[in-house]
Amino acid sequence: MAAKENPRPGGRSARVQASVHQAVRELLADMDRVDVTIPLIAAKAGVTPSTIYRRWGDLQELLADVAVERLRPDMQPIDTGSGRSDLEAWAEQYAEEMSSGVGREIIRDVLAAQDNANAAKCCAFTREQVELLSDRALSRGESFPPVDSVMDQVVAPIIYRILFGDEPTAERVRGLVSGVMAKGAAVTPPPRASGRKSA
Amino acid sequence: MAAKENPRPGGRSARVQASVHQAVRELLADMDRVDVTIPLIAAKAGVTPSTIYRRWGDLQELLADVAVERLRPDMQPIDTGSGRSDLEAWAEQYAEEMSSGVGREIIRDVLAAQDNANAAKCCAFTREQVELLSDRALSRGESFPPVDSVMDQVVAPIIYRILFGDEPTAERVRGLVSGVMAKGAAVTPPPRASGRKSA
Repeated sequence: MAAKENPRPGGRSARVQASVHQAVRELLADMDRVDVTIPLIAAKAGVTPSTIYRRWGDLQELLADVAVERLRPDMQPIDTGSGRSDLEAWAEQYAEEMSSGVGREIIRDVLAAQDNANAAKCCAFTREQVELLSDRALSRGESFPPVDSVMDQVVAPIIYRILFGDEPTAERVRGLVSGVMAKGAAVTPPPRASGRKSA
Repeated sequence: MAAKENPRPGGRSARVQASVHQAVRELLADMDRVDVTIPLIAAKAGVTPSTIYRRWGDLQELLADVAVERLRPDMQPIDTGSGRSDLEAWAEQYAEEMSSGVGREIIRDVLAAQDNANAAKCCAFTREQVELLSDRALSRGESFPPVDSVMDQVVAPIIYRILFGDEPTAERVRGLVSGVMAKGAAVTPPPRASGRKSA
């Protein structure tokens, strides 16, 4: 998804985006980030630099756009049989991925862009995963804490620790999950229609 | 405090640092951040560009170093008479300052640097403030949640919301404080010697 347009799949605009994203990923794999420039990316992607400037504005926005795509979840959270252990497994994996070198670079790129549309998108991806866990638990007849509480009390402390120089250990992550499960367990609501929650 | 050395107050090194920091603050007040360069800063501070490169490495590190100094608390948290309302008042002010335009820029600058010593310092400033609140509450004979819980359940969600595109409203902040007070109130310990807690 580009910063400034939402290209029709398979259209010219979508092909340009795919090849520019691909070029950025390849360059980042090969060289130091500070050496990556828009002319280099353009040459590798087979487009003109002005195509990139027109579409993304600047390098920082382009890097944020590529980074957020790497955060798009590509799998369903593991089903371990109960809401609590689903959340534990998901949170441990999330903490591990986000505190890896690649994870930290992705967060940094997303946050460095002036436009914070990408940061909001990245938060939305995470929230969707938590909503999936919640839907699954509720459909099993279990109770589950409100999604907002999980964002505030599990996701936020993990990211805060990563950004401000601490390590969210597996033990600490389990402590966070156990805190939110103990406190804010929501009442099991009646089965509801599919449709995404608006909150 | 420079990124790479800890200058003796009043020494040449401290004077260089003070004048470079001052130059950065003045330039940022006058012009767009993307137009601020090391040669401009050097000219305004009356030092050579290589002095800046030698000491800070690059512009990003220098900006982070200046930004973190702006986060150094310059006052004691307000004493409102009880630990709960102290924490409420402090957290509301913290959320307000950090979500302002200037606050967001400071956080962004601190996080953009490769070296995360400044990010850790910024987290340490916040923790010191919470420790002060805790010490004050305990010395009044009140109970107070563990400092770690306040960091995880009040500070982290405020910063997460600011970074990822949501607004930590006053109401929401009070909700966070009320959650941490309800859950994890620590037992009042016996009066302890001064000295900063190591945690």
